Amino acid sequence: MYETELKIAKDIALKAGKIMLEYFDGDQGLEHKDIAGATEVTIADKKINSMVIKELSKHFDDGIIGEEESTSDYGSGRKWICDPIDGTRAFVIGIPSATFSLALVVDGVPIIGVAYDPFLDKLYWATKGQGSFCNGKPLAVSGNKLRGHYVLMPSNPKKIIADTKLINNLLETGARLDSIYGAVYKSCLVARGRAVGYLEKLVNPHDIAAVHVIVEEAGGKVTGYDGRELDYTKPFKGAILSNKVCHDELVRCAV
Amino acid sequence: MYETELKIAKDIALKAGKIMLEYFDGDQGLEHKDIAGATEVTIADKKINSMVIKELSKHFDDGIIGEEESTSDYGSGRKWICDPIDGTRAFVIGIPSATFSLALVVDGVPIIGVAYDPFLDKLYWATKGQGSFCNGKPLAVSGNKLRGHYVLMPSNPKKIIADTKLINNLLETGARLDSIYGAVYKSCLVARGRAVGYLEKLVNPHDIAAVHVIVEEAGGKVTGYDGRELDYTKPFKGAILSNKVCHDELVRCAV
Repeated sequence: MYETELKIAKDIALKAGKIMLEYFDGDQGLEHKDIAGATEVTIADKKINSMVIKELSKHFDDGIIGEEESTSDYGSGRKWICDPIDGTRAFVIGIPSATFSLALVVDGVPIIGVAYDPFLDKLYWATKGQGSFCNGKPLAVSGNKLRGHYVLMPSNPKKIIADTKLINNLLETGARLDSIYGAVYKSCLVARGRAVGYLEKLVNPHDIAAVHVIVEEAGGKVTGYDGRELDYTKPFKGAILSNKVCHDELVRCAV
Repeated sequence: MYETELKIAKDIALKAGKIMLEYFDGDQGLEHKDIAGATEVTIADKKINSMVIKELSKHFDDGIIGEEESTSDYGSGRKWICDPIDGTRAFVIGIPSATFSLALVVDGVPIIGVAYDPFLDKLYWATKGQGSFCNGKPLAVSGNKLRGHYVLMPSNPKKIIADTKLINNLLETGARLDSIYGAVYKSCLVARGRAVGYLEKLVNPHDIAAVHVIVEEAGGKVTGYDGRELDYTKPFKGAILSNKVCHDELVRCAV
């Protein structure tokens, strides 16, 4: 099932990675999407988003929802959800935790997830029910509890001090906390068993649709910030991705 | 001046990078140096530190102060100061902002600084009075003010919420804040002009001795957390590294 879709998504991911590497060190043509300048976009984001639409449209009639450009709205049926560069801010600063992310969602459920980290040349993929892989090797979450293990958070100190209650709740469990920019990068660390969980209040569907499948198929659990199932037929905010063992405790900390 | 020392330091850095890559994905033999388990050490840290002592001792009689192993104490005269892996925590979690760092300090003043990021294959070096380079290309800090530009901070949310006054002071200047683990990685982003400053209250001499030269020779400024000159003849805590333009304002925010 979905072999063709997966193969095409993986090819697209590798093409996206080349564009990311091409623009990482040089002039990125940085623009700000909002007046406050909080949301960055670069030439590479736009080029990758266009390439994704062009390549997918060669093979499928499905709707495509990209962070920078879409051919469709959210809804039921088959939708590709893409973040051309997850972690644009990291990309802009020069932090190699920016990744490409592409998911196929069917009736609101993520079925295929592909993420590519071009800096470490790690291609992650998963198809629902068929396991999760990095460069061909199966991924598995850890069986660790929170105490003494890593929970990953937003890397923006402004967001951190806006919710000291969450940090204190997490520290009370004995968890170690750390942060890096990039929802996909952090989620892949959960899928690889290097962190027990990642939670973020303001994450969007395009940030986590792909890693949703990758983390679940590695044995983990993914829900909304309130612990409920996520529905990708419409936009939402916030998610918790964990190794399953720690999930309920993370939901309790987040509430 | 110091050509031989620089060449040997660069060769050692490349060797260290190979060891880092060898251990990044596999079993790292993680140990905790303190009872609270807050300070990690891996086989790679120890192997690199031993290699540095062995290689330097072939050529020089200077004292060597490494994070994991030393042949000397701080003091006057010629001392090599090494952090075999700056950002061991990043290394352990799987975040590629861990770097090798080696400095030659003479009578408390850093003269040579070499840092190597094996993940992006970026070798940084500087000799006092002779400019700062990355893979052979000259480095220059930005001329940007704080407003709208990046200041880098500790990535540990526990440290962030312990000093909300600092965060609020920085946000009032209009600076954007972000964080990643690794003092050397952050400092190199300042030297490359991607960030205007980096400040950290608890940083140690071995974390910043090398980037001290790299940032200064790129046109930046480096002081203690209180704005005073740093003296590497003895241990200290805290530093501010900036593009010079923003330095005084960062010191005011930190006080």
